[in-house]
Amino acid sequence: MVEAVGTLDGWCTLHDTRTFDWTSWKMASENDRKEAVQELKELMTKWEAIEEEKNGSQSIYKVVGNKADLMFIVVRPTMDELEEFKTELNKSKIGDYLIPGYSYVSIVELGTNDTVDEVKNRKINEAVEARLKPILPKWEHACFYPMNRRRWNEANWFTIDRKERQRLLTDHAATGRKYAGLVKQIITGSMGLDEWEWGVTLFAHDPLQFKKIVYEMRYDEVSAIYAEFGDFIIGNYLPKEDLDTYFTL
Amino acid sequence: MVEAVGTLDGWCTLHDTRTFDWTSWKMASENDRKEAVQELKELMTKWEAIEEEKNGSQSIYKVVGNKADLMFIVVRPTMDELEEFKTELNKSKIGDYLIPGYSYVSIVELGTNDTVDEVKNRKINEAVEARLKPILPKWEHACFYPMNRRRWNEANWFTIDRKERQRLLTDHAATGRKYAGLVKQIITGSMGLDEWEWGVTLFAHDPLQFKKIVYEMRYDEVSAIYAEFGDFIIGNYLPKEDLDTYFTL
Amino acid sequence: MVEAVGTLDGWCTLHDTRTFDWTSWKMASENDRKEAVQELKELMTKWEAIEEEKNGSQSIYKVVGNKADLMFIVVRPTMDELEEFKTELNKSKIGDYLIPGYSYVSIVELGTNDTVDEVKNRKINEAVEARLKPILPKWEHACFYPMNRRRWNEANWFTIDRKERQRLLTDHAATGRKYAGLVKQIITGSMGLDEWEWGVTLFAHDPLQFKKIVYEMRYDEVSAIYAEFGDFIIGNYLPKEDLDTYFTL
Amino acid sequence: MVEAVGTLDGWCTLHDTRTFDWTSWKMASENDRKEAVQELKELMTKWEAIEEEKNGSQSIYKVVGNKADLMFIVVRPTMDELEEFKTELNKSKIGDYLIPGYSYVSIVELGTNDTVDEVKNRKINEAVEARLKPILPKWEHACFYPMNRRRWNEANWFTIDRKERQRLLTDHAATGRKYAGLVKQIITGSMGLDEWEWGVTLFAHDPLQFKKIVYEMRYDEVSAIYAEFGDFIIGNYLPKEDLDTYFTL
Amino acid sequence: MVEAVGTLDGWCTLHDTRTFDWTSWKMASENDRKEAVQELKELMTKWEAIEEEKNGSQSIYKVVGNKADLMFIVVRPTMDELEEFKTELNKSKIGDYLIPGYSYVSIVELGTNDTVDEVKNRKINEAVEARLKPILPKWEHACFYPMNRRRWNEANWFTIDRKERQRLLTDHAATGRKYAGLVKQIITGSMGLDEWEWGVTLFAHDPLQFKKIVYEMRYDEVSAIYAEFGDFIIGNYLPKEDLDTYFTL
Repeated sequence: MVEAVGTLDGWCTLHDTRTFDWTSWKMASENDRKEAVQELKELMTKWEAIEEEKNGSQSIYKVVGNKADLMFIVVRPTMDELEEFKTELNKSKIGDYLIPGYSYVSIVELGTNDTVDEVKNRKINEAVEARLKPILPKWEHACFYPMNRRRWNEANWFTIDRKERQRLLTDHAATGRKYAGLVKQIITGSMGLDEWEWGVTLFAHDPLQFKKIVYEMRYDEVSAIYAEFGDFIIGNYLPKEDLDTYFTL
Repeated sequence: MVEAVGTLDGWCTLHDTRTFDWTSWKMASENDRKEAVQELKELMTKWEAIEEEKNGSQSIYKVVGNKADLMFIVVRPTMDELEEFKTELNKSKIGDYLIPGYSYVSIVELGTNDTVDEVKNRKINEAVEARLKPILPKWEHACFYPMNRRRWNEANWFTIDRKERQRLLTDHAATGRKYAGLVKQIITGSMGLDEWEWGVTLFAHDPLQFKKIVYEMRYDEVSAIYAEFGDFIIGNYLPKEDLDTYFTL
Repeated sequence: MVEAVGTLDGWCTLHDTRTFDWTSWKMASENDRKEAVQELKELMTKWEAIEEEKNGSQSIYKVVGNKADLMFIVVRPTMDELEEFKTELNKSKIGDYLIPGYSYVSIVELGTNDTVDEVKNRKINEAVEARLKPILPKWEHACFYPMNRRRWNEANWFTIDRKERQRLLTDHAATGRKYAGLVKQIITGSMGLDEWEWGVTLFAHDPLQFKKIVYEMRYDEVSAIYAEFGDFIIGNYLPKEDLDTYFTL
Repeated sequence: MVEAVGTLDGWCTLHDTRTFDWTSWKMASENDRKEAVQELKELMTKWEAIEEEKNGSQSIYKVVGNKADLMFIVVRPTMDELEEFKTELNKSKIGDYLIPGYSYVSIVELGTNDTVDEVKNRKINEAVEARLKPILPKWEHACFYPMNRRRWNEANWFTIDRKERQRLLTDHAATGRKYAGLVKQIITGSMGLDEWEWGVTLFAHDPLQFKKIVYEMRYDEVSAIYAEFGDFIIGNYLPKEDLDTYFTL
Repeated sequence: MVEAVGTLDGWCTLHDTRTFDWTSWKMASENDRKEAVQELKELMTKWEAIEEEKNGSQSIYKVVGNKADLMFIVVRPTMDELEEFKTELNKSKIGDYLIPGYSYVSIVELGTNDTVDEVKNRKINEAVEARLKPILPKWEHACFYPMNRRRWNEANWFTIDRKERQRLLTDHAATGRKYAGLVKQIITGSMGLDEWEWGVTLFAHDPLQFKKIVYEMRYDEVSAIYAEFGDFIIGNYLPKEDLDTYFTL
């Protein structure tokens, strides 16, 4: 039996994309629209309080292209809170115009080179604790994509030696470090929760950096040989103060 | 000819996911909404009576993410009753807001290491009988995913030796036993009934355990080499007493 | 050039699945609903006359799960009649609530071990004639799935020796014979007509037999190595006398 | 570098499938329906004039099964005319009920065994000219399917020797000739135009011939080893004089 | 570690396809239609001013076939401007009839044979600068398709030697040069931005050239062995002066 690599697990995360129904929005009365935006602002204020108290984090992004119009990234201590977030949004006035699209459910994960049993017995220090309960950086752009490790007979991540996995990930991390200060990333795991094994959420001031880091990393052995990628979604940060502009016709 | 492994087969099961049409729900009158929830409660009371009489079982889950809003897991002695369950739900008042999504039809299955012919001749004891006619545990979280065994030339579950299959499954079961008390599972088979071969339904108090068990098991040889997985759906248990809260705007 | 295996071809078949629009159905007046069901009954009476005159056959099934609500299986001498059946259903009153879903077009086929040229020169006896123009058994349950034979380099059904194909099919038929009296099957071919090569329609009094036969057959070499399967649909027979019950709210 | 095989290219073709919205059609007034059918007849008269002047060709087919209700096959000298055909249909009254479905854009193509450079320098005789600008035979049935040639490492059509390709196609053509008088075919190419490489449109008086030719050809080495097929669509010819019957409720 | 090939990156690009809702368009009043077209013309005038100032570029194409009715190709210095373009279109009057379809987000890219580190240190001359900030040629036809390089064990673009990649691309470029004056192309990269790695946008006076170049290139080793292609979309240029004709019923 190959030893399973251990993980440290943190908060639950939801990536929730929505298409905005502009046609219905235009048909609504100006007053209805005003109330809907006002209510969303109040929700955001409530969510921001949760973030200030370090009980969770969230951001809204304006998606580039037609995959969606908005992407909500939400981090919470429990799956119950994620479901409540979604349902509260759906029940809200603006929810009538936010047609649900692709979503992704996962848990913040720090990979370790330890086996499962060692991880179970280990204490988590403060720095690690902070990474497991991340506050999303309010940078201008976010990029999300899910991924798998291949289980092909000729390239099976789950059957190769642990040292080989360690070597491949060390090389990969070296590429990542070149982008320090340019790209921040949060890795979440979704085995047992969603159809991909991991999700990568990147943040940058300049979206070109998303292309550069993913491009360069694709030549890393661990990506070139062992990675399968899902769809990439890129969005521009939408702060509360820009809501009026965004929704004004 | 390779000997087919036998199975013991129990009740029929339906996993039925629904998106709730909140926009139409808001447009309904308060009285219509009240009546719809009331009727659903009465249905649930009727279903609970079936469960008490050990003639079936069912639970409703609030789905995390946009794949669906609700998942009904229903177990009944016959396929007729499963179809009637679906149609009764569709005919009900709340049914107008429950847009059908992904579903999965299967039969509770206990794998055995015996061949088909031996299984046919065997008596089933009481403990096995209980597992074949399961009452769903009312734990806080459920996770469902369907799966296949690969039929690749270089990794074909259905052509390898029976002893080899037995060895692989014994290893796999050992991983599962580590989660005793943390995760309960029901295995259902759907060959001839749905597009995947098996469905796995897990129950836990802590949804992190879904991630941990699936993660650790992926390194088991039987998963790493022979498994293909469908989509994972995770939901939070919705008891009858929370229906009002869930549907209240 | 590998010799193509010959086929004997019979009536044209249509598997036509529909989702019933219960929400619109409820919004219709009671009188409109009554007229729609009445008209469907008259259509069924007309179709039954065709069946009595041995000019075709058909059955309606209540589908288990959300893939569809109803499945019409229709057998007719010509493709023109199949198209007319569909269009007549669409033009009917009940057709307004029958949202078209997955369908499958094929021709009843008896495989032979003869080459195409031999088949062309052969006479067809009465028993074979009856199987080529099948009257659907009015058993309680039906199961449908389409399938392909693999054309992989390492497992290519269409390039292996005819004798090898014959051996594999003989083994497969032996498994099938174990289910005599429990499962009836109709094989239809759809090369040139639909996206899968063959369709399998099974009938049983007990739907567990669908699971058992498909399960056991999956270990047959011909399935384990050479088969690709599409979606499985399972339905419960809906006789004319149950129409009122089915459509009553 | 492998030598690219040359092609002779003719008219542009559009396969355009539509689902007919019978529910809305029934809700239209009888007068609106009459006007819509009348306008379609006038369009058909105009299109027929184009065909008589040998400036293009087209036919409408009633599709068997639920993939679509109607398929328009349109051949025109230019892509501009194909787009105008589609837009004119959409702007027409009947267009409101013709929900667009799958379509396929390609150019009539005659394969040759010459390389690209030789083809460029060659004159095209009259018989070839006629095949490049085909008038669709008004036979009772049509069948369409798109296809690719495999680019697998162990079976790559685009890297094998030109003589080998020639040998395989010669064998294939021999199978086709057996169906002379029973099946007519038009090959169109869509590299750079649509997602498959080639489209095959077959015509027959008896649709069983579609099954027979595709079945027999699947054993040809070129299909068994190098072909990938898309969906097959089969339709029954709908002449202008049958329009009233088709659209009458 | 294989050396990643460097890229020079330019403007951000959006390919945005839309289906036009002709049925709703017909139901709008003539005045509403007039105003919607008038507003679109004003938007185009504004966009043209951006193009004249070399701050971006855009064109609208009438799509052949049912994949979409219109394709907007938009080039802008930033992702923010691309999102604003989309949202402005959605907020506009005509936006109510432009149902969003497939889209593709990428950045103009010039491949180089240098490694990432060398590219970072290099100055970009004026000719290169112009290619990185392209003004779309107003030729009659455009063709778009996304593509990947394979990462198969037996054909992995990202693990082969840099010199081998260079040789393959040099051969490929030679094929491209044969079409000088007939076909213009813009290559964009979308790693980290969209689900394919690269997008190819071709322009031609004669759409047959799209077929010819893609056909001939498919025999190039780099395509035959290492390429995976997405869907191809072909459109006819729609200049502002043709808007009235296009939208007039």
